[in-house]
Amino acid sequence: MATLHEISDPADPRLADYRDLRDVELRKHLEAEHGLFLAEGEKVVRRAVEAGFTPRSFLMAPRWLDGLADVLGTTDAPCYVLSEALAEEVTGFHVHRGALASLERRPLPSLEEVLEGARSVLVMEDLVDHTNVGAIFRSGAALGFDAVLLAPRCADPLYRRSIKVGMGAVFSTPWTRLPDWYDALPTLSALGFTTVALTLADDATPVEEAVAGVDKVALVLGSEGHGLSARWEASADRRAIIPMREGIDSLNVAAATAVACYVTARR
Amino acid sequence: MATLHEISDPADPRLADYRDLRDVELRKHLEAEHGLFLAEGEKVVRRAVEAGFTPRSFLMAPRWLDGLADVLGTTDAPCYVLSEALAEEVTGFHVHRGALASLERRPLPSLEEVLEGARSVLVMEDLVDHTNVGAIFRSGAALGFDAVLLAPRCADPLYRRSIKVGMGAVFSTPWTRLPDWYDALPTLSALGFTTVALTLADDATPVEEAVAGVDKVALVLGSEGHGLSARWEASADRRAIIPMREGIDSLNVAAATAVACYVTARR
Repeated sequence: MATLHEISDPADPRLADYRDLRDVELRKHLEAEHGLFLAEGEKVVRRAVEAGFTPRSFLMAPRWLDGLADVLGTTDAPCYVLSEALAEEVTGFHVHRGALASLERRPLPSLEEVLEGARSVLVMEDLVDHTNVGAIFRSGAALGFDAVLLAPRCADPLYRRSIKVGMGAVFSTPWTRLPDWYDALPTLSALGFTTVALTLADDATPVEEAVAGVDKVALVLGSEGHGLSARWEASADRRAIIPMREGIDSLNVAAATAVACYVTARR
Repeated sequence: MATLHEISDPADPRLADYRDLRDVELRKHLEAEHGLFLAEGEKVVRRAVEAGFTPRSFLMAPRWLDGLADVLGTTDAPCYVLSEALAEEVTGFHVHRGALASLERRPLPSLEEVLEGARSVLVMEDLVDHTNVGAIFRSGAALGFDAVLLAPRCADPLYRRSIKVGMGAVFSTPWTRLPDWYDALPTLSALGFTTVALTLADDATPVEEAVAGVDKVALVLGSEGHGLSARWEASADRRAIIPMREGIDSLNVAAATAVACYVTARR
């Protein structure tokens, strides 16, 4: 059973994991250096623990203790209990759904482990928006994708906001970082995947045609601003587009991915 | 040509339209009472003016003046010029892409005007998230929808964030508020539309079946939290679902809408 600690001082050093959650840059350093990530909200906290991540601590207002009693029962980690006003002082924002947990990151699995048995894979290049990364994990999970691969510079899927938007899909979906950016797509081709890059390139074929009849597919997604790098666009096996009305400057990457996942799942 | 005014005092009363842009509640009142909305970013500002909205004023850092010179040339509205640091003091946040405009809202068109010639229509019930509203406008525009209808309590598509996420699709897509919530869907049915509600209800059919062969379709979307109201779910002609992997608690509404729009556009 987690040990409860009532907190009355927002400067309490035991709350270090929960400081300044809105400061993205600070959080990136802090989380990387301490090997931790934060889960927010009762549902997401539960999913993180159920997925086997080891909690470092919990932080919540008293009214969440009952709902999470079963989760708290599985661990000896401290649970810091404080008012919502105090929680806001510590974290720098209004904590929706009242509960937070700090959990230990795990070593990332190898590419081979993640791809074991996978037939439909999402590959993100340099997405910068945590909301998009989370939404894409969620769409992939809902629409039948088996794994997610991230280029070395893609935004962190264990960042609090990614996890929250993804409703914890990052816990249930096997994922890892691609060890090498330059040859990432040829490597996937060599492993038996047809790499299909979503792009607005002139020679792109409608995604439905691009994936028709293909067994193992890796759907490749570029960043929000400039799309895929020239290298990735050129080294993909196929280039695909979602047919759109003329004059519209494309879907956002999360919407495009949802459509492409739906189509690919039905190939 | 817009008249340029250099600003050195962030408390300058002429900047009233641009105050505290992060305070959603305050902005709602201010914008409704003054009949204005804000466009953010060079591209979106340009689209708003090109769509015929009358500017009340502009606010930007000097480096944006050249890029928007053509737009500023079309109006006599004042353009307030100030440093980015000062702009941040006024608006309360870092102004991405440096340019803002305050524009006059226009009276909403009638339902009949908006539906004139439309074959594919999106209907949003009580969505609360401006990001989702904007993303849905954008997906609808990209995927061939002709018009958007909003329930009386749906979030404002002319809120700054909706416009920005939607990349100005709210300017190019005919839209209006439904005058009546209770009978909104029967009214659309009487106007010749088959209303197809996206839902997780047990009796829902896959969306591809639900729209197959239908001429005029109104795709009906519920709120982020609880989905459609019982009234709307019951009064829709058909209930449709996007087939998903078991155990996943559904797509978010923007992703689901993108998929449903794609499928519906190909009916």
